[in-house]
Amino acid sequence: MDLQAIGKLAKEASYELAIADSKQKNAALETIALALEANESEIVAANKQDIQAGIDAGLTDALLDRLLLDETRLAGIIADLRSVINLADPVGEEFDSKLLENGLKLSKRRVPVGVIGVIYEARPNVTIDIAALCLKTGNASILRGGKETIRSNMVLVKVIQSALQKAGLPKTAVQYIESTDRALVGELLKMDQYVDMIIPRGNAGLQLFCKENSTIPVIIGGIGICHLFVEQSADFDKALAIIENAKVQRPSVCNALDTLLVDEKIAAEFLPKLAAHLLPLAVTLVGESKAKAILGDKATVAQEGDFSREWLSLHLGVKVVTGLNEALAHIREHSSEHSDGILTNDFTVANKFINAVNSAAVYVNASTRFTDGSQFGLGAEVAVSTQKLHARGPMGLQELTTYKWIGIGDYLVRG
Amino acid sequence: MDLQAIGKLAKEASYELAIADSKQKNAALETIALALEANESEIVAANKQDIQAGIDAGLTDALLDRLLLDETRLAGIIADLRSVINLADPVGEEFDSKLLENGLKLSKRRVPVGVIGVIYEARPNVTIDIAALCLKTGNASILRGGKETIRSNMVLVKVIQSALQKAGLPKTAVQYIESTDRALVGELLKMDQYVDMIIPRGNAGLQLFCKENSTIPVIIGGIGICHLFVEQSADFDKALAIIENAKVQRPSVCNALDTLLVDEKIAAEFLPKLAAHLLPLAVTLVGESKAKAILGDKATVAQEGDFSREWLSLHLGVKVVTGLNEALAHIREHSSEHSDGILTNDFTVANKFINAVNSAAVYVNASTRFTDGSQFGLGAEVAVSTQKLHARGPMGLQELTTYKWIGIGDYLVRG
Repeated sequence: MDLQAIGKLAKEASYELAIADSKQKNAALETIALALEANESEIVAANKQDIQAGIDAGLTDALLDRLLLDETRLAGIIADLRSVINLADPVGEEFDSKLLENGLKLSKRRVPVGVIGVIYEARPNVTIDIAALCLKTGNASILRGGKETIRSNMVLVKVIQSALQKAGLPKTAVQYIESTDRALVGELLKMDQYVDMIIPRGNAGLQLFCKENSTIPVIIGGIGICHLFVEQSADFDKALAIIENAKVQRPSVCNALDTLLVDEKIAAEFLPKLAAHLLPLAVTLVGESKAKAILGDKATVAQEGDFSREWLSLHLGVKVVTGLNEALAHIREHSSEHSDGILTNDFTVANKFINAVNSAAVYVNASTRFTDGSQFGLGAEVAVSTQKLHARGPMGLQELTTYKWIGIGDYLVRG
Repeated sequence: MDLQAIGKLAKEASYELAIADSKQKNAALETIALALEANESEIVAANKQDIQAGIDAGLTDALLDRLLLDETRLAGIIADLRSVINLADPVGEEFDSKLLENGLKLSKRRVPVGVIGVIYEARPNVTIDIAALCLKTGNASILRGGKETIRSNMVLVKVIQSALQKAGLPKTAVQYIESTDRALVGELLKMDQYVDMIIPRGNAGLQLFCKENSTIPVIIGGIGICHLFVEQSADFDKALAIIENAKVQRPSVCNALDTLLVDEKIAAEFLPKLAAHLLPLAVTLVGESKAKAILGDKATVAQEGDFSREWLSLHLGVKVVTGLNEALAHIREHSSEHSDGILTNDFTVANKFINAVNSAAVYVNASTRFTDGSQFGLGAEVAVSTQKLHARGPMGLQELTTYKWIGIGDYLVRG
């Protein structure tokens, strides 16, 4: 496995992709869709081997379900691929154009980033998703999936590559690191001469490893320690509906609610309603001392670190705060700056909250569950960034691009 | 020197700055301008100590000149500071606003990045420039200047801090790492819990050190290996004027020309004119074999690595290429992706060049010297980025900001 050679080929492919027009890129995506349909049985058979290996290794049913790629799921992935074809191509857009006093005609043109390295876990749909979104935006990609789906991924990439060749684009535009040797991730993160951007899609450990070891810019994200603050003026019943939605609809995802902060002026009245609403939905309330005192045996006692964890389960941290300022201080200390919101009818307090909270998505009277590329109308989602630079929150196609300045003169010198 | 304490104070100050309005920030900047005027003699005296220490250490006259901060230069810096006051504040702008089908009122709001760490060398004007640009955009800054100007910088920061306090903003909004211990730079680069962005303003060694050691996103930039390609259809006289401007006007800066690529179809005619034009201006032509063969004793022989260096002097690499494709290949291999241009009268070739060259600034019939914040009409320049993410090319105030998504609903849940 010569990773340097993969990087060099990817960089060369990126030059070709950068000048491919939308029609050509869309034709390649359609060729891939057709090839996936034509190779359905081989793909499903490879996935069956992954599943069997997973059963032999004693993986949980939940994880096995994430690995599964049957005919129905493959059809869904192919449908998603075709919807990417229908999205507008952001590449080539010119913006901020101006004729400067010095005579220079200046504009910014949106261009692909170049080569994108993506490190991800279990689910094989990510392989096709990411390859397609990168191709659509003229980027070459180097993929590194989890070892549990290596057989599925290798067949998928083989199908994608031969389709690319058929469509007249370099097959090295999508490459896969076939070895499961973890040292290769470390090597990929240092290949800044070839790779322009790293997207780690995985747990906090992977994010940290990338942050600490990469010489390539990394998009940190996907970890959501999300808060809602129930301010004293909130409508209780409507607030409960939002809390239920944020916590219960899909507890295993990053935009699910982790901590509820409740104004002490309403805590005695609101918390029993909260328990009555959520306990029948199998939610476990985890209270700090003041909340626990009100909730009694309806809540467990919060342990050290409970307010700094992403639950990914039906647990909900509950804390009573003295008001807006303590809520803001708690959010600053514990939020992963993914999605945080306030439930209130007070316009002034709502604006203070919006101004002071510095998360990628800040909500007033809406569920944290909205932080999602398709909910935000981006059409697709590559990742959810929780860092400050380049992109914040759901990243769509545009966030896989950068710009270059184009200056045109009539043989113009600087005075 | 407790760097962690500095980081924590900076983060706390950033919360206050983020909600300060433009009027308050501008008033603070004017207070700083007045304080610099009032403390002119103390500042100039501290700088005299730096200069004396530099003389004792045997610094070159050129470097001593860079360190110098006399009354005239200080007045210039204060004038620049007042022009920052007059720039529009990008913070608070809302954009991409939309009402989504799901009922969510969504917009992006431009907000400060947070805490910015800046590592720079000799010139003391950078201390005031950067502090002012960060304050204007609501960012706290942690500054680390070169040891040659430590006395000047410490007085400047003391003046800035007491002016901040007078203006009602936290004095910890601008902090300076007073020790010259280099290990502290390494420690700063790991403080990702407090610092959101690192801007290294210095040589390639500093850039590399930051890239390899930072867990904080770094803005790599300021290294320009810049190219011009003289295509066969170019107007010779006008081309020579641009080449002179790009090479001779200010050879020590990053947007100066380093390598001239000449189409072989015109080389025999053009290169003698080039030599006749540039040699009287003290330019040394450094030719690869084909160029040297034509230029004879008008050029020295290019050595290994000469086409991969930023000259920062009156040297100019000259290479004869077979046409556009070889020019593009050379630029891809050697450019630092700062500023590259083509001189041509052929519209089709010009467009091919623009499409294929992936540098931060790509020019047609214009000098590379235009790559500059003030030339581009940005009003100020923090740095020139040569990386792909967040910002490319000259970075103005907007590039010191990020955005957050604001979602407002009427007690809205995700369906």
